[in-house]
Amino acid sequence: MSDYPILSTIKSSHDVKRIADGDIDALCAEIREKLIEVVSVNGGHLSPNLGVVELTVAMHRVFDFPKDSVVWDVGHQSYTHKLLTGRFESFDTLRTKDGISGFPKKEESPYDDFNTGHSSTSISAAFGIANAKAMKGDNSHTVAVIGDGSLTGGLAFEAMNNAGRFNRNFIVVLNDNKMSISKNVGAIPRYLTTVRIQPWYIRVKKFTERALSKIPLLGRLIKAFLRRSKSKIKNIVYKNTLFDCFGFTYLGPIDGHNVEELENALETAKKITSPTLIHVVTKKGKGYRPAEDNPGEFHGIGQFDIDSGEPMSSHKGFSAEFGRTLCELAGKDDKICAITAAMSGGTGLNEFARTHKNRFFDVGIAEEHAVTFGCGLASKGFRPVFAVYSTFLQRAYDQLIHDAALGQNHLVLAIDRAGIVGSDGETHQGVFDVSMLNTIPNSTIYSPCYFEGMRKSLHTALYVQKGLAAVRYPRGGELYRPDDFGEESIDYNICGNPNARYLIVTYGRLFSYACKAREELRRKGLDFCILKLCKIKPVSREAVFFASRFKEVWFFEEGVKNGGIARNFSDLLALSGFKGRYHIKAIGDEFVKQMTVGEALAQLRLDSAGMVEVITRNLSDGATVHI
Amino acid sequence: MSDYPILSTIKSSHDVKRIADGDIDALCAEIREKLIEVVSVNGGHLSPNLGVVELTVAMHRVFDFPKDSVVWDVGHQSYTHKLLTGRFESFDTLRTKDGISGFPKKEESPYDDFNTGHSSTSISAAFGIANAKAMKGDNSHTVAVIGDGSLTGGLAFEAMNNAGRFNRNFIVVLNDNKMSISKNVGAIPRYLTTVRIQPWYIRVKKFTERALSKIPLLGRLIKAFLRRSKSKIKNIVYKNTLFDCFGFTYLGPIDGHNVEELENALETAKKITSPTLIHVVTKKGKGYRPAEDNPGEFHGIGQFDIDSGEPMSSHKGFSAEFGRTLCELAGKDDKICAITAAMSGGTGLNEFARTHKNRFFDVGIAEEHAVTFGCGLASKGFRPVFAVYSTFLQRAYDQLIHDAALGQNHLVLAIDRAGIVGSDGETHQGVFDVSMLNTIPNSTIYSPCYFEGMRKSLHTALYVQKGLAAVRYPRGGELYRPDDFGEESIDYNICGNPNARYLIVTYGRLFSYACKAREELRRKGLDFCILKLCKIKPVSREAVFFASRFKEVWFFEEGVKNGGIARNFSDLLALSGFKGRYHIKAIGDEFVKQMTVGEALAQLRLDSAGMVEVITRNLSDGATVHI
Repeated sequence: MSDYPILSTIKSSHDVKRIADGDIDALCAEIREKLIEVVSVNGGHLSPNLGVVELTVAMHRVFDFPKDSVVWDVGHQSYTHKLLTGRFESFDTLRTKDGISGFPKKEESPYDDFNTGHSSTSISAAFGIANAKAMKGDNSHTVAVIGDGSLTGGLAFEAMNNAGRFNRNFIVVLNDNKMSISKNVGAIPRYLTTVRIQPWYIRVKKFTERALSKIPLLGRLIKAFLRRSKSKIKNIVYKNTLFDCFGFTYLGPIDGHNVEELENALETAKKITSPTLIHVVTKKGKGYRPAEDNPGEFHGIGQFDIDSGEPMSSHKGFSAEFGRTLCELAGKDDKICAITAAMSGGTGLNEFARTHKNRFFDVGIAEEHAVTFGCGLASKGFRPVFAVYSTFLQRAYDQLIHDAALGQNHLVLAIDRAGIVGSDGETHQGVFDVSMLNTIPNSTIYSPCYFEGMRKSLHTALYVQKGLAAVRYPRGGELYRPDDFGEESIDYNICGNPNARYLIVTYGRLFSYACKAREELRRKGLDFCILKLCKIKPVSREAVFFASRFKEVWFFEEGVKNGGIARNFSDLLALSGFKGRYHIKAIGDEFVKQMTVGEALAQLRLDSAGMVEVITRNLSDGATVHI
Repeated sequence: MSDYPILSTIKSSHDVKRIADGDIDALCAEIREKLIEVVSVNGGHLSPNLGVVELTVAMHRVFDFPKDSVVWDVGHQSYTHKLLTGRFESFDTLRTKDGISGFPKKEESPYDDFNTGHSSTSISAAFGIANAKAMKGDNSHTVAVIGDGSLTGGLAFEAMNNAGRFNRNFIVVLNDNKMSISKNVGAIPRYLTTVRIQPWYIRVKKFTERALSKIPLLGRLIKAFLRRSKSKIKNIVYKNTLFDCFGFTYLGPIDGHNVEELENALETAKKITSPTLIHVVTKKGKGYRPAEDNPGEFHGIGQFDIDSGEPMSSHKGFSAEFGRTLCELAGKDDKICAITAAMSGGTGLNEFARTHKNRFFDVGIAEEHAVTFGCGLASKGFRPVFAVYSTFLQRAYDQLIHDAALGQNHLVLAIDRAGIVGSDGETHQGVFDVSMLNTIPNSTIYSPCYFEGMRKSLHTALYVQKGLAAVRYPRGGELYRPDDFGEESIDYNICGNPNARYLIVTYGRLFSYACKAREELRRKGLDFCILKLCKIKPVSREAVFFASRFKEVWFFEEGVKNGGIARNFSDLLALSGFKGRYHIKAIGDEFVKQMTVGEALAQLRLDSAGMVEVITRNLSDGATVHI
C-alpha cells in the first residue's frame, strides 16, 4: 500500500468527491499511513491529525473548497487537508526549510484561507470571512474547525458572542477529542461530557431534525414554532446546550470516525440559515496504537520509531530541569504554586502536578486568565509561577501590565521555548517576549544560559524580586560550555581577557555560540572578551561600566531588535561615558520562517560562524555600524 | 441634606450594618447626591456608580469586608464602596493628583482587595483570591462584581471555565444593566434578556429555592436529588442557564434597586458550597434623570452642570474628526468597515454606525476578537479600521502579531487616547502602544499632531500601506500650531532654521509643546530647529539624514522609552554617521499616576517648560546625557 493508490490520485478537493463510498475507508487508511510515515521522520503534530482524518475527508466531500472557506483552529490538524489539496507529493518536506508548513499557510495554497498557529482564533477569523462574504453577496459557506481545548480560550467565546446573532449560514465544527494538548480541564470540557452522554437528548433531537427535514413545508413551520415557542419542549429540544445560549443551533454529538454520519451532519448544517455548531466526537491519535494510548505524548513530537512509537531523541532539557527545580522548591515552601495554560507536559510540570496537586493549576488554554488568576493568588501571599511558552505569553501582555506590574502582584514567569524554536515556524518563534517584557515598568527579566543559572534565577525571582519577574530559557538543553567558565552568575559573567580591545555582549544560549566564536576569532589573532548577561532587565550598572572600557562592543541578541536589550544597553553605555563603537546584531523587522534552530541562527548570523562573520566584516570599518 | 447626616457617620463596612432598615433609602439617596456633587465637578464615571448604590449597600450589609473580599470589574463602579469604607471625607479629591482614585486601589484602603481598571478581570482575580483562601483554610467569602458588558470579554469566560469546578463557595455578582459603555451587543446580552423575561422560570426557581431552604434535612435531600437527576425537572430548574453550563448555580434575576431582595439573594449565595452567580438587574444612571435618559453620555464624563446635565466642555476633538473622516471615506469606498470593541461613542463612530450600518461592527468588549475578526474581513478584500483606545489595544498584542502582521492581513488601527490621558490614571495611560507596535515586524505607525495629519495618515494607511498600519492620536483636540507651520506631512516636517546648531525631534502632540519650547529657547538666545515626525515606524531615512547634521539632538517622546522610537532613531542616526550628542527624554520604567494631562506632562518634563529645562540643563555638558 506504500504507493498510496487512492491518495496519490487526489489533486484537489474535487477529486475527494469522486472517490466511491466503498473506497473511503481505504483512503482514510492511506492518509493515516502517510501521516505516520512523514511525521515519524520530520516530527510534527501526530495525534491531532490522526483524529480528524474522517472529518476532513467528509468536509471535502460536502463543501466546495476553496469557494467555501475553512479556518483550522491552531492549524496543527490540517495535514489531511493538505494531503487532499495538492500537497501529497511535497508532503515529505513537512516542517523543513522551504518545505510544507505544519500549519495552514495561504502562501502555500488557495485552499488555506487563513493562517493559524495559536489557539482559539478560528471562529473570529471565520466570522470575519463570513461577514465579508455577506457584504459581497457571496453565498458560499464558511467553516471554523475548533477543538474542545481551544474552546477554553476566551477569544473563542468573544467570537461566539459576536457570531451568535448572525442571520446567515455560519458553521463551527467542534472537534471534541476530550483533550487539549494534555487532558482537558475546566467546566466546559466537563459540560461537553454531559452532552455526550445524554442519549435521550440526542435521540429526541436527531429524531426531530430528521423527521422535520423530511416534511418540506410543514416541517419548516413546526421548526419555526419550536424556535419561537416558550414551551418546555423548546427548552428541551432547542435550548438545552451552552451553544444555544450563544445563539448557535446545536447538532450532535456526531461520531467523528463515521464519514457517512459526518456527511449527513455537515449537509444539514449547510441548510441552516443561522450559526450552527456541529459537535463531532473524535479520538485523538486514532488508528495508531501508540498515539491512541498516549495522545499527549504524540501531540507534537520529534522523530520517532514507527513500530514502537519510541522517540528518537529524549525530551530532556530546560523544561524538565525547571520542573524538577520547582518541585524541589515547592517541597520546602508551601506558598509556591504552579500554573499552566494546558501545557503541563511541555513546560515540565507533570511531576509538580503529581506531587503538589493542590498547588497545581491547569487553567485551560487561557494565558490571560493564567496571569490574572496568578495575580489573585499572589495578592494573598502565595508565590505563583506561570510556566508558559514565550510565543503564547504574547496573549497576556495587557494582564502582565495591568494586573501583575501595575498591581504590584508578585508573579513569576517561567518562559519556555524562548528564542528560535525551529520547525513550528513563524507563529511559534519565541523572539518577542524580551521586547514585550522590556516595555513593562518594574519588571525583571533573567535569561540564563545553563541549568544552574536557570535554577538560581528562579530562586531569586521567587525570593528576592518583587512584582513581575521572568526567567526565560530556550527549547532543548544546555549547549557548549567552555572549560574555563566558572559559576554562572544571575547577574553577569565575564569570560576571557578583561583587558582585550574587543567585547562581545550577549545573553541566554547565544553565550555558547559566542564562546565558540571567540575561539575562532582567537585563531584569527583577535582577542575578545565576553560579557554574558543573565539579568537582562535591569542590566547591572557594573556590567555596563565594565563594557564601557572597551574600544569596540558587539551585542548579539536572539530576539527582535526593536524594544530589545541591546538598545537599552546602548543607552546605558552612552551614559557611562563609552567612547568606542557599538554594534547590534539582533532580529530585524521580520518574521523568522520554519527551519531548524541551527539553520535559523545561521541565517540570522547569530550562530558562531555568523558572529565571526559579522565581527570580522565590520572590525576595521571607521564608522559605527549596526548590522 | 447637603451635610449627609447618615453617610457622614459611616466610617467602615461595619457601620453600614448598623443603619436601621428604615434609613436605607435615605442613605442611598445621600450616596447618590454625593456622587453627583463630586462627579459634576471632578468628572468621572457617573452612570455605572448610580446603578450600583443599592447593590453596594446590600453587599456591605451581608459581607464582612475586608475579611471577605470583593473584586470590582473595571472598577469604575466602586465609588459607593469607597464612600462606605472611610473615604467619604476625602471623596472630593476624586480623580485629582494625589487624590482618591476613580478605580479600586489597594494602596488606598484595605477594603480594595485588587486593583482594576480594564474590563473582564474580576472573576480571574477573585478566583485566584478564593483559591489562596482555600489553600490557607480561610473560610471567608470572595465576590466578583462584573457587568454584563464585561462578560463579553473572553477573559471572563476563561475564568468561568476554570472556576466552574471549584468545590467551595465563590460568588459572582452579574450586574446586568443591559449596557456596556454603549448599548450592549452580541448573543450573551440577548440571552440575558431572555432570562430576564422568563417569569415562569424565575418563579419556579425562587419557589423551589425558598421552599427547600425552609425544610432543613428533607430540603437538602430534594436539592441533591434534583441536582443528580437526569429528569426534565432538573433540566428546567437547575440546568437552564448559560451559567449552569459553566458549573455555576444561578440565582436570579434580582431587582438591583431593592436592598432587601438583594440581601436575601446574597445571604442565599453565601450558603452555597460551590460557585454561584447572582443575576442582578440594575438601571444604569438610576436616580439622576439626565443619566437615566442617556447613560452612555454619562458613563465617563467631564465636569457637568448638575441641574441640566449639560457638559461644561464639549467633546469635540480627534475622535470626532476621525469619525467624520472615516464616514466620508466610507461614502466613497464600500470596502471600508469600522470595528469597535464597545466604544462606538468614545471613538467617534456613532455617525458611521448610523450611515454605514452594514459595515459597522461593534463586537463587544473583545479587543482580541476585534483584531482577528478584522483580519478575516481583510483576508477577503475589505478595508477594516479598528478604532480603539491605546490602553485597551494592549489586549490584542498577540492577535496583532499572529493574525494581522504575520498573516499579512491589511488591518488599520485608529488608536485613540494615545499618550497621557489624565484623571483615569495609571491603568488607562496610552503610553505603551508605540513600543508594543514597534516590536511587530512590518507594522507601520503614524502619529500626527493635527487633524490634517490624522486625515492624511488614515488615507495612506488605508490605500498605500499593506499589512498592519496604525494611526494614533491623543485624547482631546489640536493644540498650539505656530503661524509659520505649513502643511502637515505624513512623513516629517521641519520647523525653524535647518542650519541651527541644535535639533529637537518629536512626534504627535508634543510638537505643539516643542514649538512653544523653541520660542522660549529663542528668547534665551538659543536657535533650535524642530524635526516633527508623523510616520514613526519606519522613520524616513531622509529625516534621519537631516538630523545627522546637527551638533546636538534631543528626542522627546510621550511614551515609554523602552521599545520606543527615540531608540530606533538613535540606531539610525549612528548608521548615518552622526557625530554629535543625542539625548532622549521619554517615560522611564515607571507608571504615570492620575493627574491632569498638563500636570503629567509637566512632571515628566515633556511640556514646553520641561523641554526647556531638560535642554538648558544639559546643553553645555561635555558627555552624552540621557535624562
